[in-house]
Amino acid sequence: MSSYRPDYTKAPRYTGIRTFMKLGLDLKMDGSDVAVIGLPFDTGASFRAGARFGPAAIREMSVLLRPAHSFHKINPFEHVRCVDYGDLPLLPGYMEDSFDIIRDTYRRLAREKVIPVGLGGDHSVTLAELRGLADVYGPLSLVHFDAHGDTWDEYWGKKYTHGTPFRRALEEEIIDPHHSVQIGLRGTVYHPDDMDEAAELGFEVIAADELHTLHPTDLRRRIENRVGDRNAFLTFDIDFFDPAYAPGTGTPEVGGFTSHQGLTFVRHLPLLNYVGFDLVEVLPAHDHSQNTALLGAAVVYEFLALIALNES
Amino acid sequence: MSSYRPDYTKAPRYTGIRTFMKLGLDLKMDGSDVAVIGLPFDTGASFRAGARFGPAAIREMSVLLRPAHSFHKINPFEHVRCVDYGDLPLLPGYMEDSFDIIRDTYRRLAREKVIPVGLGGDHSVTLAELRGLADVYGPLSLVHFDAHGDTWDEYWGKKYTHGTPFRRALEEEIIDPHHSVQIGLRGTVYHPDDMDEAAELGFEVIAADELHTLHPTDLRRRIENRVGDRNAFLTFDIDFFDPAYAPGTGTPEVGGFTSHQGLTFVRHLPLLNYVGFDLVEVLPAHDHSQNTALLGAAVVYEFLALIALNES
Amino acid sequence: MSSYRPDYTKAPRYTGIRTFMKLGLDLKMDGSDVAVIGLPFDTGASFRAGARFGPAAIREMSVLLRPAHSFHKINPFEHVRCVDYGDLPLLPGYMEDSFDIIRDTYRRLAREKVIPVGLGGDHSVTLAELRGLADVYGPLSLVHFDAHGDTWDEYWGKKYTHGTPFRRALEEEIIDPHHSVQIGLRGTVYHPDDMDEAAELGFEVIAADELHTLHPTDLRRRIENRVGDRNAFLTFDIDFFDPAYAPGTGTPEVGGFTSHQGLTFVRHLPLLNYVGFDLVEVLPAHDHSQNTALLGAAVVYEFLALIALNES
Amino acid sequence: MSSYRPDYTKAPRYTGIRTFMKLGLDLKMDGSDVAVIGLPFDTGASFRAGARFGPAAIREMSVLLRPAHSFHKINPFEHVRCVDYGDLPLLPGYMEDSFDIIRDTYRRLAREKVIPVGLGGDHSVTLAELRGLADVYGPLSLVHFDAHGDTWDEYWGKKYTHGTPFRRALEEEIIDPHHSVQIGLRGTVYHPDDMDEAAELGFEVIAADELHTLHPTDLRRRIENRVGDRNAFLTFDIDFFDPAYAPGTGTPEVGGFTSHQGLTFVRHLPLLNYVGFDLVEVLPAHDHSQNTALLGAAVVYEFLALIALNES
Amino acid sequence: MSSYRPDYTKAPRYTGIRTFMKLGLDLKMDGSDVAVIGLPFDTGASFRAGARFGPAAIREMSVLLRPAHSFHKINPFEHVRCVDYGDLPLLPGYMEDSFDIIRDTYRRLAREKVIPVGLGGDHSVTLAELRGLADVYGPLSLVHFDAHGDTWDEYWGKKYTHGTPFRRALEEEIIDPHHSVQIGLRGTVYHPDDMDEAAELGFEVIAADELHTLHPTDLRRRIENRVGDRNAFLTFDIDFFDPAYAPGTGTPEVGGFTSHQGLTFVRHLPLLNYVGFDLVEVLPAHDHSQNTALLGAAVVYEFLALIALNES
Amino acid sequence: MSSYRPDYTKAPRYTGIRTFMKLGLDLKMDGSDVAVIGLPFDTGASFRAGARFGPAAIREMSVLLRPAHSFHKINPFEHVRCVDYGDLPLLPGYMEDSFDIIRDTYRRLAREKVIPVGLGGDHSVTLAELRGLADVYGPLSLVHFDAHGDTWDEYWGKKYTHGTPFRRALEEEIIDPHHSVQIGLRGTVYHPDDMDEAAELGFEVIAADELHTLHPTDLRRRIENRVGDRNAFLTFDIDFFDPAYAPGTGTPEVGGFTSHQGLTFVRHLPLLNYVGFDLVEVLPAHDHSQNTALLGAAVVYEFLALIALNES
Repeated sequence: MSSYRPDYTKAPRYTGIRTFMKLGLDLKMDGSDVAVIGLPFDTGASFRAGARFGPAAIREMSVLLRPAHSFHKINPFEHVRCVDYGDLPLLPGYMEDSFDIIRDTYRRLAREKVIPVGLGGDHSVTLAELRGLADVYGPLSLVHFDAHGDTWDEYWGKKYTHGTPFRRALEEEIIDPHHSVQIGLRGTVYHPDDMDEAAELGFEVIAADELHTLHPTDLRRRIENRVGDRNAFLTFDIDFFDPAYAPGTGTPEVGGFTSHQGLTFVRHLPLLNYVGFDLVEVLPAHDHSQNTALLGAAVVYEFLALIALNES
Repeated sequence: MSSYRPDYTKAPRYTGIRTFMKLGLDLKMDGSDVAVIGLPFDTGASFRAGARFGPAAIREMSVLLRPAHSFHKINPFEHVRCVDYGDLPLLPGYMEDSFDIIRDTYRRLAREKVIPVGLGGDHSVTLAELRGLADVYGPLSLVHFDAHGDTWDEYWGKKYTHGTPFRRALEEEIIDPHHSVQIGLRGTVYHPDDMDEAAELGFEVIAADELHTLHPTDLRRRIENRVGDRNAFLTFDIDFFDPAYAPGTGTPEVGGFTSHQGLTFVRHLPLLNYVGFDLVEVLPAHDHSQNTALLGAAVVYEFLALIALNES
Repeated sequence: MSSYRPDYTKAPRYTGIRTFMKLGLDLKMDGSDVAVIGLPFDTGASFRAGARFGPAAIREMSVLLRPAHSFHKINPFEHVRCVDYGDLPLLPGYMEDSFDIIRDTYRRLAREKVIPVGLGGDHSVTLAELRGLADVYGPLSLVHFDAHGDTWDEYWGKKYTHGTPFRRALEEEIIDPHHSVQIGLRGTVYHPDDMDEAAELGFEVIAADELHTLHPTDLRRRIENRVGDRNAFLTFDIDFFDPAYAPGTGTPEVGGFTSHQGLTFVRHLPLLNYVGFDLVEVLPAHDHSQNTALLGAAVVYEFLALIALNES
Repeated sequence: MSSYRPDYTKAPRYTGIRTFMKLGLDLKMDGSDVAVIGLPFDTGASFRAGARFGPAAIREMSVLLRPAHSFHKINPFEHVRCVDYGDLPLLPGYMEDSFDIIRDTYRRLAREKVIPVGLGGDHSVTLAELRGLADVYGPLSLVHFDAHGDTWDEYWGKKYTHGTPFRRALEEEIIDPHHSVQIGLRGTVYHPDDMDEAAELGFEVIAADELHTLHPTDLRRRIENRVGDRNAFLTFDIDFFDPAYAPGTGTPEVGGFTSHQGLTFVRHLPLLNYVGFDLVEVLPAHDHSQNTALLGAAVVYEFLALIALNES
Repeated sequence: MSSYRPDYTKAPRYTGIRTFMKLGLDLKMDGSDVAVIGLPFDTGASFRAGARFGPAAIREMSVLLRPAHSFHKINPFEHVRCVDYGDLPLLPGYMEDSFDIIRDTYRRLAREKVIPVGLGGDHSVTLAELRGLADVYGPLSLVHFDAHGDTWDEYWGKKYTHGTPFRRALEEEIIDPHHSVQIGLRGTVYHPDDMDEAAELGFEVIAADELHTLHPTDLRRRIENRVGDRNAFLTFDIDFFDPAYAPGTGTPEVGGFTSHQGLTFVRHLPLLNYVGFDLVEVLPAHDHSQNTALLGAAVVYEFLALIALNES
Repeated sequence: MSSYRPDYTKAPRYTGIRTFMKLGLDLKMDGSDVAVIGLPFDTGASFRAGARFGPAAIREMSVLLRPAHSFHKINPFEHVRCVDYGDLPLLPGYMEDSFDIIRDTYRRLAREKVIPVGLGGDHSVTLAELRGLADVYGPLSLVHFDAHGDTWDEYWGKKYTHGTPFRRALEEEIIDPHHSVQIGLRGTVYHPDDMDEAAELGFEVIAADELHTLHPTDLRRRIENRVGDRNAFLTFDIDFFDPAYAPGTGTPEVGGFTSHQGLTFVRHLPLLNYVGFDLVEVLPAHDHSQNTALLGAAVVYEFLALIALNES
């Protein structure tokens, strides 16, 4: 089972092939609980493109992470069998084909009771992830950290972009907005009442201004109340963080959160029935410091800890 | 009137010529209420030069902003007629000529009841802006966000630099320090009591250490009390923000404010009789992430919202 | 007619709104001879994305160029009426829609006898440009500077990418390979005989190794012989230059040309019946020095000089 | 005595040879109280290397600092005689030789009652600094700001790296853990109980999560209680700050502190019997904005102010 | 045998785990002919450190390379069985241990008739590579491309740095200088006659000034005459190229070679009895454009082609 | 005399305070032959500003240079007594004051028979250098390497910028154009015949296109014939090199020279009666690789070698 547990004692962290945290690379998934999956895609991007290199950048910096969690006092890899599943062969410019590949993979993983942890890629990929999981689990509760609600109906007359996935998901009835929550929304909008629209669609929205005043345990309680014991998908757009913390992203939004705030929120999340996770919108070409990739990797590691806490 | 309102529905935000938020470019100003004006100048810079490229960088990132304000729930462009007035033809190395160009333009705009919103440029340009406005309005109240008071008497024996404009403005009696306020001052100084000097000159100073503990509504009240119904000029040096948020600036000063703090302060500003605004000291050569330009554009957008709130 | 001629005598070059070389912005084209057109698109990119910001970056650095040509001893703007036509509203992720917009615009320009000079954008846009022009002119001779032939049949089973436009153009009979020439090809390929394939398709190929030994007048003669008096389209992929000279591009290829070599080749081009030009694959996120954008602007300026020489 | 006091009135700050704050360069130390010493070394680095250029980068940005302290209202240079001692001739790859050079220098300085202020260099150098000072003063109390405890027993079977200096110092009995405190620790670890290990070794540990809730005067009291009137060494790893504030460092750790938090903690430190200071792990190759170097210089300046407060 | 041949037809090149050119990762080597081996080490660096990240950077950009060689018209992977052997677990700061690991691995590979292709790492690693190979093959002929001879006797009194490996190799009689050649040497030296010293030690030196005038076939002939049918090791320091082409390196040296010159020299190398290769001194922290990593990968690919030509 | 000779044997090159090549810092100049002088000034810049940091950047990278010259086989420091004179206290925005400081210093140095080697700074400083030297030596012959002639009459109606110094110098009769030569001119101009203007003013102009075909010994002969035994000043604008080699400069000009070409031309310069040198227009904010600063330092070192050859 050694391939499920990174070994950091024999060689410096910067050595070795870049799988996520140097996990074993496994495309068969026999017996594993969690699969970290690269989703190198940015055809849905409405501003900066380049998130296709996000998975590689997250893996590159993930090797700096040590295996054990000092807050939860747990080594996730002692509780869950994790592998790096590599990247899905998504095709730039071909959204439908790419989404089918994601959906098929996620459906298969769900059937095998493997929890996928996606590395984006622009946020449009989450629609395809949700489709695959809903094929098995039915409509999901969405726990959504983001600067933007991504519930616009269309962009320039087009239905499929990284600004619209959750409107589509709602229409396709693969998420249940009434048991979903959007956290951290902020910034300029197209019409003065755009921020209210998500609420009208059924989502609970905790906008950034409110969240800045919220204690992590309050956030936990509200999510718990909202989701209950339903199957949940946690999607985390790196632009939840302020651009000072995550400059390498597609549509940076000022007024965001510090890394300490974000990690603390995540560490206090309720132990829901998570059936999948993703971390999206890391765009390395604008990440000269590699801070964004590191922060993205740290959030993904928190996901693994959440899963392990559920198991332990 | 379409040139006064950006249209974001037909094409991606990154397309098109870089006027501020894709506003119409208008050098005649007939009938407009607000003119965004580039002041590409850095001859007053005492440390890093390069703010001459600030206006272009702010415009470049401003296209990411959407037209409506989610906090104030207003689309400023439905209430005020805004144009991009282009850049003034300022001459590097020739401060007096350049200041005359600024002064003449601002005087003309003031007479036509157009509110100028300047894009710096180093902070020395504000002296010329104030001269032009005071020609029409008389002495102004200054609302001044900055890491530095810029009230030194001279640098290396010289009276005109970006560290001295408000001492000169005071001497020229174009601002009234007793109804002005400086906000966010911090950092090392030349003599232990330099920070007190601004107060001795008549300014109210809210230093960074105090401001870090102040609620936005408290700040609002203090400014309101200080300025009242006088004509006010709001000048915002981007180095008010910590260098983590605004690395691209001429004299970065650690210990500053987050983007959330800064934007919240601005959103709670009182609705004064603003006769002009500027946002200065964006220096793109040190802004690899473009975060500084984006944050600068966001602050300028807040100015437009303030004006619209006054109008609505 | 002043909008057709940039005026550099009154203000520093870095001032003013970023049209190409500060040309007048004109979307009506009445009476102009040449339209510089932004094609902000990168959905066809097979490696790095981000060329959608290419037109803005080229315009930004184009202001450094002075109006007159010291080699040809001509001021192009005294001979041809140039405007900046702005950007076409191309939609990321939607290749067919975007290509239709390009085709329609180019067809209209061709009918009005305006020569379009496209600013890419990834190389897939050239297919759409050729379609629009061929609608009016019939099959065109292609003069193609590039590191890659872009004549592969498909990528990952897909027909439309930036690696396939000239195979498609050939199939659509909008270019005539027997009177076309590809210049500067080099680098690794998919199969050992890929380089020969372009020749089999009918193109004349002058590979990089040969070109490194060729005198500019020899190149001129070979192009002249190949194209004759047919209508010609000149497409220039910035990766013709070595990555040392043009790091900001989508698929950099070592072993390329210096800026001096490239400009000299272009300056010795024959005066063909050029009906259109483009300069593609400038990708500013990887262009920290802005050298690529500057070099791209310089090549575009050479196109304007070629047109002017034809007119003078 | 002029060489002990920087003169900022005659020339711009960016002029002149880069000593720390333009202090006099003095290798003899006659009569000086404080010596700023470069320790250009990174052989102990376990992840990114390059801190050997840290001293030069800190000096480069230190010239932006003005001489007087606006919080403490003191000009340190009026109270203590400071010199820049230059760099020690440390040898990359040769840790023992380099440590001997540091130890010998520090021992000599201690004997001459000069307080050394080291500019790192990776954190392994602190072991050698402590050795030299303990030769004169005996075991020291350590006041240690850092994201990491650096008390691991070994890395890859090796005893000497930048992750182990304080375990070695403890074993060598040159620090007294029972009167030492570690402040700001956070991040992933190797085993779930690693964070407790430092406490078991005797250190008081104030982890980041606790520190985020602590008032500066509380921190002061706890340090005061812990150290009392013992001889103290203050070591500050720049990665105490969040990577958003200090991207240029060897092992960045998310969830850290803002510059305002860090500086406020330092400004409220008790006036202990400091016999030495260092600021380590500035790595300029990853510091594109120069923010890390500036922040490092600002912390060093705070050290000088602390010394001056002790003297005044 | 599929793991020996990269498949580029099913997914974009930027997808997938970063092995060299997406070769199979194999640590057993059964039946393979060539092993690409990462040597992440920079303890020998005398100026900039950071080459420990060289192997990862080369692998990252290597995925841009297509499998077939257009000059030699060969697909190397159809002739030789290549694997990526991962990184050796070298220990920073511990040169002797690290060199033993390299030596042991290379000795074993040599016994199994596998040709190692090392990815540096600073140039000190070559000494250890040569030791391992000489254990099996006896003294080797060195074909050495570099800006620097690396034959200094010592640096600061120390015998082992990246400036001394070939002096040590000569003393250890693991290379035979009389059948070795150094190519491309240039730049400032410590004593006016340093350049002659290599010749006195027995090497043939082709300095940069001479090489700039040499035809590739002349270089081929001189190497052929020098080495004959002896066992040869080819070591290529990326600083052979001018810093314009390879900015990301430890000791850049102006006056170097273009990528076209360098690749052409390598493509014309004689088919010697190569028993090993390495490409060293890629330092990604200074390689903002990724050009250096790409060029390094391209040179490594040329090595594979050379081996394949020997086999075909 | 040790301060005149850098010692590289005891410590790594990256250690120590950044004087030019670690020369002794001497503001008295007693007995020295050559003074390297920083001229941190950019008020004359017409495009990018920031050359005020040029001297510091050149010094920073100069420490990589070793003391002896492998082409001329000479250690300059054994023949001439060199010191680093520090920076002159030039005032940004105050050109006349700054020029007076330069002129006074150069006049004094000339009287003391010290040869100044200026580190720019924008090219406007050369006018002041020439004034100071002409005060002692009378009109000088100018040997001028540059992409631009800098002989325009004015910019935007202004006489003093970095584009006009040699027109002014000619008018002031401090240079003799009939015994001067301009080398490397290229690029776009304001009027088609601008390039001829320099010739009409009396200069010999060797434009880039001609120079690209010239053998270094031909260049030597032409300069020799032109200058003879007159007192000569050599001014070298770093933009003589192509932006690929020197990206960090104020007005980059494509089509330039490689570092090998440039250094070879300089190494073949005739041994004239040089009374001063400068290297200008290094602008570090755009020099991410530090290549420009390194190349600038290398050219300055060539100046020292030229002086030493004259002495030896």
